[in-house]
Amino acid sequence: MEKHGFLISFEGGEGCGKSTQVKRFLQYLEEREIDFLFTREPGGTEVGEKIRDILLHDKSDLSANTEFLLFSASRSKLVEDVIRPALREGKVVVLDRYFDSSFAYQGFGGGMNLATIEKITELAIGEDLKTKKSPQSAVPKLTFLLDLSYDAGMKRKSADEKLKNLDRIESKEKTYHERVRAGYLNLSKKFDDRFCVIDASQSVDTVFENIRREFEKRYDG
Amino acid sequence: MEKHGFLISFEGGEGCGKSTQVKRFLQYLEEREIDFLFTREPGGTEVGEKIRDILLHDKSDLSANTEFLLFSASRSKLVEDVIRPALREGKVVVLDRYFDSSFAYQGFGGGMNLATIEKITELAIGEDLKTKKSPQSAVPKLTFLLDLSYDAGMKRKSADEKLKNLDRIESKEKTYHERVRAGYLNLSKKFDDRFCVIDASQSVDTVFENIRREFEKRYDG
Repeated sequence: MEKHGFLISFEGGEGCGKSTQVKRFLQYLEEREIDFLFTREPGGTEVGEKIRDILLHDKSDLSANTEFLLFSASRSKLVEDVIRPALREGKVVVLDRYFDSSFAYQGFGGGMNLATIEKITELAIGEDLKTKKSPQSAVPKLTFLLDLSYDAGMKRKSADEKLKNLDRIESKEKTYHERVRAGYLNLSKKFDDRFCVIDASQSVDTVFENIRREFEKRYDG
Repeated sequence: MEKHGFLISFEGGEGCGKSTQVKRFLQYLEEREIDFLFTREPGGTEVGEKIRDILLHDKSDLSANTEFLLFSASRSKLVEDVIRPALREGKVVVLDRYFDSSFAYQGFGGGMNLATIEKITELAIGEDLKTKKSPQSAVPKLTFLLDLSYDAGMKRKSADEKLKNLDRIESKEKTYHERVRAGYLNLSKKFDDRFCVIDASQSVDTVFENIRREFEKRYDG
């Protein structure tokens, strides 16, 4: 089979089981001997690491706007230096969160202007979000949204040892997470050519079967 | 006289005499015992210094888009931490280049999308560029554009010892600088409530007299 670049992103709210599914998906790619690259934001480049240092070290000192601009700068670097080269080499590139997270969390969740996020994202990835995609496009070919209600997500988190490490975002209130979820569903309708919404309340195996089937349909095609 | 915050930016192409005029203007403010703050981008804040390090150290490794996003992040920080507090304290804040430079150089000169620059600038300064300005607004009350033809600017530069240190931007070709100049003039028409265009081919004294007169009209008047 001919190799072709294929970009996949995984998205979803807290407790949706994203990490577990990403891990299984990478194992599946390995078993199939498909050449892949897994990465996450920020980081992944030298400049990205420096930006990550600022984002972590000076977090309390950064406004939402400054933070988003820094994050976008590292996204831009990751796309240029890591994602596009891997796609050119014909790899399957897997991202645990990508720009849809900015729309869902900073935009729908935090109230940042969506048109502004869109413009900045387009500058960061160097592409229009809505044009037809080439194999080297930095817009995903497939975005898995693991959809779960806030209550179900929290219940899963509670059963999880991660409860001890609830981070800033996780400690925000329920309405915020409901806005994020609604935002994701909104995005999935706006970009229905690439979004695949999966009911994450199902068992781990069932969710993964959905992911595998959809990937094979689109990648092997 | 009651103190009130007043933001002034100086803009212009290479060799327009901007640094000389800024220096004279700051001396003038001192003589009048007007409380002022002078700053320039990036830098001016701890986070800004870290970003400046990336911009300088990794320059050759940065695309125009990444560079602009980083620059905007430091602009955002400078506005929040330095410019707005000074305006709130009633200071005259003087900037040697500000966001109009992004429009002129990256936009008109370098071809970056102007609507994108506008959106990002509005996010960076936390304000709409076109709304009515409060005394604490991070949009300048007065922007001096020192307008000069490319040939006159280069002639002045040649007479200057700075010729030895021609930087990346200065070494770009004539048409680029002509686009920058036309861009500045375009901005001065779009934002004619704050722009004051001065013919920088006049003597240093005459140019400064124009600046002083305009400042007194707007600040005192």
